[in-house]
Amino acid sequence: MFKAIVSASTLRDALDSVSVLVDECKVRLNEDGLSIRAVDPANVGMVDLSLDAAAFESYEADGGVIGVNLARLEDIAGMGNAGDLVHLELDEETRKLHIRIDGLSYTLALIDPDSIRQEPDIPDLDLPAQIVVEGNQLDRGITAADMVSDHINLRVDEAVETFHIEAEGDTDDVDFEMGPEDLIHLEAGPADSLFSLDYLKDMNKAIPGDAEVTVELGEEFPVKLHYEFAEGLGQVTFMLAPRIQSE
Amino acid sequence: MFKAIVSASTLRDALDSVSVLVDECKVRLNEDGLSIRAVDPANVGMVDLSLDAAAFESYEADGGVIGVNLARLEDIAGMGNAGDLVHLELDEETRKLHIRIDGLSYTLALIDPDSIRQEPDIPDLDLPAQIVVEGNQLDRGITAADMVSDHINLRVDEAVETFHIEAEGDTDDVDFEMGPEDLIHLEAGPADSLFSLDYLKDMNKAIPGDAEVTVELGEEFPVKLHYEFAEGLGQVTFMLAPRIQSE
Amino acid sequence: MFKAIVSASTLRDALDSVSVLVDECKVRLNEDGLSIRAVDPANVGMVDLSLDAAAFESYEADGGVIGVNLARLEDIAGMGNAGDLVHLELDEETRKLHIRIDGLSYTLALIDPDSIRQEPDIPDLDLPAQIVVEGNQLDRGITAADMVSDHINLRVDEAVETFHIEAEGDTDDVDFEMGPEDLIHLEAGPADSLFSLDYLKDMNKAIPGDAEVTVELGEEFPVKLHYEFAEGLGQVTFMLAPRIQSE
Repeated sequence: MFKAIVSASTLRDALDSVSVLVDECKVRLNEDGLSIRAVDPANVGMVDLSLDAAAFESYEADGGVIGVNLARLEDIAGMGNAGDLVHLELDEETRKLHIRIDGLSYTLALIDPDSIRQEPDIPDLDLPAQIVVEGNQLDRGITAADMVSDHINLRVDEAVETFHIEAEGDTDDVDFEMGPEDLIHLEAGPADSLFSLDYLKDMNKAIPGDAEVTVELGEEFPVKLHYEFAEGLGQVTFMLAPRIQSE
Repeated sequence: MFKAIVSASTLRDALDSVSVLVDECKVRLNEDGLSIRAVDPANVGMVDLSLDAAAFESYEADGGVIGVNLARLEDIAGMGNAGDLVHLELDEETRKLHIRIDGLSYTLALIDPDSIRQEPDIPDLDLPAQIVVEGNQLDRGITAADMVSDHINLRVDEAVETFHIEAEGDTDDVDFEMGPEDLIHLEAGPADSLFSLDYLKDMNKAIPGDAEVTVELGEEFPVKLHYEFAEGLGQVTFMLAPRIQSE
Repeated sequence: MFKAIVSASTLRDALDSVSVLVDECKVRLNEDGLSIRAVDPANVGMVDLSLDAAAFESYEADGGVIGVNLARLEDIAGMGNAGDLVHLELDEETRKLHIRIDGLSYTLALIDPDSIRQEPDIPDLDLPAQIVVEGNQLDRGITAADMVSDHINLRVDEAVETFHIEAEGDTDDVDFEMGPEDLIHLEAGPADSLFSLDYLKDMNKAIPGDAEVTVELGEEFPVKLHYEFAEGLGQVTFMLAPRIQSE
């Protein structure tokens, strides 16, 4: 059983964070809210999303799992204005999701969850550095790195307590340095890891410009990016595996 | 003889409604205003446009017919701001149309009207249902239908006095329902017809979002879409042939 | 030695006027300001740009020459908001240009100036007609000409003191006439020359809409287009060779 009402903007924010990595996913309809975990086909980027029942206008579920085509569901959510309410109701028999927005009824065929890639276990890493930065700043560094390379280095300079987004191209280099005055918070620690820029660009697309993003970082370790949406009632964690640094 | 002055925006609105169906057309320069009738190459969609002499700043004509390339004329009309006046004057000898907008003179070679597809007779159908709806609502229904299919069904539910824009895809369905509170007017009657979505999308492009569109509908009959522009001094009627409904 | 600070918008305006013609150029770092001269590969269009030291927040140079990739430098300047300050500093040893904008450091590899096409000598022509016109008007004429032809004729009618932007297509013609009331200034003289529209369109892209553009013109002679930017502290002169007029 699943029956819920949610604002179009909250639904879109939730879907966006997953669709940057995968085309289809399993959605767990828990009693206390939705949750989605997914990993991209190359096993490099993961997302872990939860949306509390309190983020909905109304929410009833009893623990089922459905498989959805994200692009389809995003198109439908896009038919509403930000504040419009989206009514969702699962028809258990036909395995279809009935969606209503302001006079518009859409019947979405669900995907057999067993045909969808298995949900990843997101490792509980204890990463030594933690940086809290505005989404806009992250975007600026990623855009700059993209001018010279398809890899990006994230690094903390412990001595001067700065966070660096760096990229080394064939001829040109970029170093975007953020000091204590540019960051919301910095917990310095040994942190220096290289990542594929394509993945980070995709994740960055889903991160709102005004979100506070918590970046957890180590030395040649995965990075975790965490932010909230829906006034704190939705949480997204991205995890991205590192690339080997060549010297 | 033809000599007229009209605002760039009125000229553009008139041309847009025809250019969504055909590339070139005959324009009848009647004494009391312009008129255009055209049918697309597949004989599926028709347009009947009239623009009264009163919609012009000044208008003189004596019943001639000219053939015009619509894209060209739209480009020229696009050189003016909405309120700019476009001066049109036919040179009978060279068969060219002289167009002036604010210092810019354009000499447009006309097309031999005999080389243009014949104007269609638009049948005077007595369709049992009539719905008056805002252009924006029609657009919403067409956009939703386009997510799942390349056909669209227009239907009136006589019992509850609702108008439905429906589409049936391979896996997903759409039903956009408008009741009395969503419609400007509804005259219920037996009405249920299937149409090619491509044509309706094209016609929809020309319909202003705030226009009151009168939809005339029957059972497996053509649909007529009627709206006004130029403060009621311009009238457009689209007619679209139905597709056979497969069960 | 070169070390300077300049607003992102001034840097962008300067680069834009050169990048419409060439991909890379030599920049002369004179004591009293920057200067760039460049000619397109076909030797048809030239640009002569100077940006006074006073247009910079701070400026120190001693006469060197550097070779730059314009697209790269434009991308970097594009990372700043209009008012953001761009710090430029030449590393003579590594032949790299260090660029800083608000926390972002970019190391740009320079190009060997000897590998860049030689700077053109811009002939000191004494052209008989001079027209001063707003950038927007020029843009309007060029856009209209582009509808019918890939050549454009610039002409002064001495008798009535008008400036004409004309184009003759296979079937259609355009004549954009500007009289004394449309022009900022006109010094009439024998002037009638044909140009490649592609080049003029490219130059036009760099000209701000509100710039006062001085057009110097003769009979089958090159045209010179001159305008200022950075509150008069930057000057750009474009020169474009004529095409032979066919009758």
